Amino acid sequence: MRLLIANDDGVFAPGIRALADTLAIAGHEVVVVCPDRERSATGHSLTVFDPIRAEVVSDRFHPSIKAWACSGTPSDCVKLALGALLEEPPDFVVSGINQGSNLGTDILYSGTVSAAMEGVIEGIPSIAISLTSFTVHDFQPAADFASRLLKALEAAPLPPKMLLNVNVPALPASEIAGVVITRQGIRRYHDLFQKRIDPRGKTYYWLAGEVVEEYPQEPNQAPTDVEAIAQNLISITPLTFDLTYGQGVQSLTEWLRQPTVQPLFNL
Amino acid sequence: MRLLIANDDGVFAPGIRALADTLAIAGHEVVVVCPDRERSATGHSLTVFDPIRAEVVSDRFHPSIKAWACSGTPSDCVKLALGALLEEPPDFVVSGINQGSNLGTDILYSGTVSAAMEGVIEGIPSIAISLTSFTVHDFQPAADFASRLLKALEAAPLPPKMLLNVNVPALPASEIAGVVITRQGIRRYHDLFQKRIDPRGKTYYWLAGEVVEEYPQEPNQAPTDVEAIAQNLISITPLTFDLTYGQGVQSLTEWLRQPTVQPLFNL
Repeated sequence: MRLLIANDDGVFAPGIRALADTLAIAGHEVVVVCPDRERSATGHSLTVFDPIRAEVVSDRFHPSIKAWACSGTPSDCVKLALGALLEEPPDFVVSGINQGSNLGTDILYSGTVSAAMEGVIEGIPSIAISLTSFTVHDFQPAADFASRLLKALEAAPLPPKMLLNVNVPALPASEIAGVVITRQGIRRYHDLFQKRIDPRGKTYYWLAGEVVEEYPQEPNQAPTDVEAIAQNLISITPLTFDLTYGQGVQSLTEWLRQPTVQPLFNL
Repeated sequence: MRLLIANDDGVFAPGIRALADTLAIAGHEVVVVCPDRERSATGHSLTVFDPIRAEVVSDRFHPSIKAWACSGTPSDCVKLALGALLEEPPDFVVSGINQGSNLGTDILYSGTVSAAMEGVIEGIPSIAISLTSFTVHDFQPAADFASRLLKALEAAPLPPKMLLNVNVPALPASEIAGVVITRQGIRRYHDLFQKRIDPRGKTYYWLAGEVVEEYPQEPNQAPTDVEAIAQNLISITPLTFDLTYGQGVQSLTEWLRQPTVQPLFNL
């Protein structure tokens, strides 16, 4: 298959090299378009006030791979690849392998997930893949899983509008307990800011904070991504770019019709 | 009520001034924490590699308003307000008024929507409000609508986990055709990149593109935000921060159990 690989850790990250090289060696036609530097926590941002440049950097990767390092964000990379750099659309966009998990509400800030989201918006099946540790640097189990997942998706395709957000426990393959389909969980942060005083006496803040994972019990629901990782399972969460709160449409429509509310909107 | 106002157009944007002043004059306790410069298309990005600063800039606003200009992104502003600057949590986060619409898939890139999303993640009811024009600068009809909407929400509260994404047609109040509850529509861009050559002979790209609005007919569904604006209606879309593709959880679970797929994942 023809694969477009992106990430948010940048071209020098070991995660993207493990992913791209593994998939190229597995026989796929691999093109890499990724940021020229780390772009973590850039969320779904775009570069609109500056021009975007892309430089060929293929010597970082397996000889069969064509690679560009791009001055933009992860979303810019996928947009630029699909809109300008690639001659034909890829069969899949694969984003990662991120150093660190992308779980719960944290995915809203994730450049890794946003890059894959760009693919899905353009109708291309897409996968975001993350290794759930900042300190374990062995990306091979996660890269091998990506390769197997693509093989399965080639044999039995899924509807194109689904982004697969994959988190792989940072464990040797033999200690990974299995694969589970999950929903997005909850991650909050306590003590979010550290307040400091600079040498000129002025206040500044560092975004910091400690993760607090929550495991709300909801009967008849899939486990959350956060729970899956806590149990040493590979988590696959199907995501959508449609943020509409489905139940909300009905309840808001009823809300608008209430006798106390409606007169306020007689424009 | 106690209101936190943010935006992505920055502290010097006329939209935030119209919104904050209108709500202060209506009797609300208003605090503004917004970016110190334009931060459009920053999506849900966070500042993690730099410290964040916030400076008091209250003289831009109505005398009753306390205001900070913050060096971070729209999401940073709301996080910093809730985590460090405000003594008590606000009753509502209101983000805007954005110059330009936030409709369809464009909301994924929207700093305005992301700022409101931060509020909802923290359990605070939140509203994003946008004026659907880059050239009409009369924010008063939209500010008045925000004031009325808050009055209605005070009288008849909604569940807290719902973000209201409001788009107001750029028309005099008398020409606005009404209010409608909508779902997120589709906006695509054609000819997304302009390729140019710099004076040193190197290629660069501008993200550009022409909007293509789509109106897919889906029976028994609410109209889309894109359709509502095309009909001169104020659009209110309930949004969620849970990106899980609900139907996908079931279909993926079945997919994983297929005899051709399952053996690939015997780890």
